[in-house]
Amino acid sequence: MEPQAGWLVFLVLSLVPLCLPIPLRDFLLEQENVRRIGGNLVLGKWEEQVNEYLISLKEKEVAKAQKTGYFPPSMHFFRAKGLIDQSAVFSILKRMPKGAVLHLHDYAILSVDWLVHNATYLPDCYICFTNVGTIQFRFSKPHPPSPVPPGCSEWVLLKTYRKQLHNISEFDNSLLKNLTLVTDNPELTYPTQAFIWRKFENVFSTASGLISYAPVFKAYFYQGLLELYEDNVQYVEMRAIFPPVYELDGTKYNESWSMAAYQEVARQFVKDHPDFIGAKIIFTTHRKKNVTEIKKAIKKAIDLRAMFPDTLAGFDLVGHEDEGRSLWDLKDALTIPYSKGVNLPYFFHAGETDWQGTSVDINVLDALLFNTSRIGHGFALTKHLVAKKLSLNMDVPIELCPISNQVLLLVSDLRNHPAAQLMAEGHPMVVSSDDPSIFGSKGVSYDFYEVFMGIGGMSADLRTLKQLALNSLKYSSLPPKEKAQAKQVWQKKWDQFIADLCNAFPREL
Amino acid sequence: MEPQAGWLVFLVLSLVPLCLPIPLRDFLLEQENVRRIGGNLVLGKWEEQVNEYLISLKEKEVAKAQKTGYFPPSMHFFRAKGLIDQSAVFSILKRMPKGAVLHLHDYAILSVDWLVHNATYLPDCYICFTNVGTIQFRFSKPHPPSPVPPGCSEWVLLKTYRKQLHNISEFDNSLLKNLTLVTDNPELTYPTQAFIWRKFENVFSTASGLISYAPVFKAYFYQGLLELYEDNVQYVEMRAIFPPVYELDGTKYNESWSMAAYQEVARQFVKDHPDFIGAKIIFTTHRKKNVTEIKKAIKKAIDLRAMFPDTLAGFDLVGHEDEGRSLWDLKDALTIPYSKGVNLPYFFHAGETDWQGTSVDINVLDALLFNTSRIGHGFALTKHLVAKKLSLNMDVPIELCPISNQVLLLVSDLRNHPAAQLMAEGHPMVVSSDDPSIFGSKGVSYDFYEVFMGIGGMSADLRTLKQLALNSLKYSSLPPKEKAQAKQVWQKKWDQFIADLCNAFPREL
Ligand SMILES: [Zn+2]
Ligand SMILES: [Zn+2]
Repeated sequence: MEPQAGWLVFLVLSLVPLCLPIPLRDFLLEQENVRRIGGNLVLGKWEEQVNEYLISLKEKEVAKAQKTGYFPPSMHFFRAKGLIDQSAVFSILKRMPKGAVLHLHDYAILSVDWLVHNATYLPDCYICFTNVGTIQFRFSKPHPPSPVPPGCSEWVLLKTYRKQLHNISEFDNSLLKNLTLVTDNPELTYPTQAFIWRKFENVFSTASGLISYAPVFKAYFYQGLLELYEDNVQYVEMRAIFPPVYELDGTKYNESWSMAAYQEVARQFVKDHPDFIGAKIIFTTHRKKNVTEIKKAIKKAIDLRAMFPDTLAGFDLVGHEDEGRSLWDLKDALTIPYSKGVNLPYFFHAGETDWQGTSVDINVLDALLFNTSRIGHGFALTKHLVAKKLSLNMDVPIELCPISNQVLLLVSDLRNHPAAQLMAEGHPMVVSSDDPSIFGSKGVSYDFYEVFMGIGGMSADLRTLKQLALNSLKYSSLPPKEKAQAKQVWQKKWDQFIADLCNAFPREL
Repeated sequence: MEPQAGWLVFLVLSLVPLCLPIPLRDFLLEQENVRRIGGNLVLGKWEEQVNEYLISLKEKEVAKAQKTGYFPPSMHFFRAKGLIDQSAVFSILKRMPKGAVLHLHDYAILSVDWLVHNATYLPDCYICFTNVGTIQFRFSKPHPPSPVPPGCSEWVLLKTYRKQLHNISEFDNSLLKNLTLVTDNPELTYPTQAFIWRKFENVFSTASGLISYAPVFKAYFYQGLLELYEDNVQYVEMRAIFPPVYELDGTKYNESWSMAAYQEVARQFVKDHPDFIGAKIIFTTHRKKNVTEIKKAIKKAIDLRAMFPDTLAGFDLVGHEDEGRSLWDLKDALTIPYSKGVNLPYFFHAGETDWQGTSVDINVLDALLFNTSRIGHGFALTKHLVAKKLSLNMDVPIELCPISNQVLLLVSDLRNHPAAQLMAEGHPMVVSSDDPSIFGSKGVSYDFYEVFMGIGGMSADLRTLKQLALNSLKYSSLPPKEKAQAKQVWQKKWDQFIADLCNAFPREL
């Protein structure tokens, strides 16, 4: 369609001086409208009514924002969250069945309240305070053996420690703070991307002491799935970095133990919630590692995928892209599956950078050349004409995580997120939340709010949302038959969602 | 080329699993490189050497920024300016012959120092202090007649006022502050776009009392051209809003007086500086006016263009786009030249907004439908697929003013400016500075720095800069013959610039 349309528009336009623009203008606007994500979905009668209602709510919220100057997607999420919580649009987005969340990280899927109020109250939980103001946790029985982690005080039993405190809830709040990036003044607290990434990785490390304790590990994953389920998510693909899970006596498990645990918990969860479709794991390792280590990780992923073909979806690299190795640097590792004739799907984070023209910036192109199934973030994609064309032609979606991009300082006003253009172009994409718990978010509804109100602008409507939900299943790693079943599950929920809204707001509709 | 290339890439890519990507990757990267602005310019031998040197300086500055976290294009210009002043790349950009500056506004082209240290020291200059903290100026002899402007104190003769001050330079600094937006903490001072636009228009109004005094009017324009000339600019097109110019006795002149004055000063300037090409005026009026008033302005512009065919280039609308009328609302006025069979070129500000899908946001498309010669800013263009195609096919450039967009809160980190993508796509564009004096900037070199270092990223090189300079002449309103002459003038300066650099840095080259 593209080249013809280009010519058509050009031809028609040359007639402009002859016949002034009214019908032509409508034609061109329509051309823009059909290209948008969801632009050629046809809504049913009830969907149309819900759409009208949703648009009217959106217009009200935008009009108010234009008057007050406070528009949540233009504000830092830490300040915007309170406003979003009050939004009528948001309350609908929460109820909407959103399909799959395909870009999440293992130790950041569940609100940290659970970690503090449940995990740290389990018996035998020790804490230590480091000389750089962070904390570490360890479960152990007996008392954890020496040495303490570098820079740490002695291990203190939390139960004992709490007993001598005047104000336990204040202490628990300080623990919460150590498990998220949330702060009152993010601009002052986090002056640079490198700085916030260091804090970000510290938070992971703090959480890791709690979550990689075997009993917590399983419970955390179950509770995390529950939180997503309660946010009306039907399916999850989660990146996992596989730190060794441990027992009270110091026993450490290997990656296949963790995989088995993930699989077992996911299956149990589906048994308990038959309208949940399931969860798969993407094996990840840190992008700062050298080629030899990455080769080892690739081989490990291949082995695990052979052992857990239904649960291990593929491979990815994590960590601050600007500071890690470029995909091209790692080509000798990343071509191993191909040269072995083994199928190991890739789900590369790529283009999570503001720099343009650096070696890392070319990751978006290289991810495609290494045949990635999806692109994590792809924030830099619009600056790469050829890569963008490839991802469009190869039908490779970006995993858009707006709150993550904002909190990690890639972009401040989300109306300027490059995905605004990708949405306008109908580029394949799904919406995800990356590390909701660390950003003080929850599930994926807040990200949907940012996409619907900010990135999509006034042009985004119910069709946009429906297409994004459909995309999340389409671009999942589910095999065709399960994908079709998943779509049925989702469709039923969607129809119910539409019917409920029609019943709930009869006067407005 | 586009559709073939798309197919070629797609075809070649389907071979990836057969032959791994080394030559293909180079081919694809090259595809991206040739599309960029300047990507198919071929540099001469000396240019190549200068390019190498320039790139090495750039790499040094970027490496330093990545280490410190302080990268000027990512910082607010008010904080970045001091760093830019120290940059070796910037010192080269200042010396570079930049061709034309096509997007400037009448009362914001000359550093405010001149206004304070020269204009306010002229005889018969009165000041009044308003109850909202702003100031107004008026030249008059005798004492200005009542009433004072609304909210103003009495008119006070500046000479008398200064006499009773302890610290005159402190007072003069406070005057400077009233004539720019510069402040130590822009984020706190200007919480919203609407807020900063009000302050912005106040600054214009303050400057207006000084500049629209007939003797200052002519001197200001001459000095403004001089400041641009000294920044190695060869030609200027300036938007003017034509407030009545006045004399000491209160006589007020009409627009044709101002046009004649502009023409006279520009001609005198060229006489004094034979290597300067000239200046044209774009007639503008405020976009908040109603259709009847805009109709009157259009007719006035048509009349003035008949009287000053060499100097009046066309018509535009100014003011905060989000709060003004959309171009489509004004269609009955904007079609007048067409229906009269008169040629009045348009140079519409369009898409200077973060909002997407509002009536104003469609201005980028409507500007093209009304056959605009250039698009002022076009910040929203990348969100409009059809409009972007049209501007590409119709060869209509955007006038990119990065510092303006940042200061007026459209975007914070300039690496995220949507023009990054337009540069990658080779979209027609020119670089301008909009209102340099009000942003605490000067000429157009600072904007070139932001474009070269930030928006263009590591891929921008000497070819980018040369193409941007060539574009500025190509997309000017100069008639073909004068354009060719202008290019000759510029080329001579360019060759000298290259030769000087080769001589100045023989060891490095
Ligand atoms: Zn991620
Ligand atoms: Zn302007």
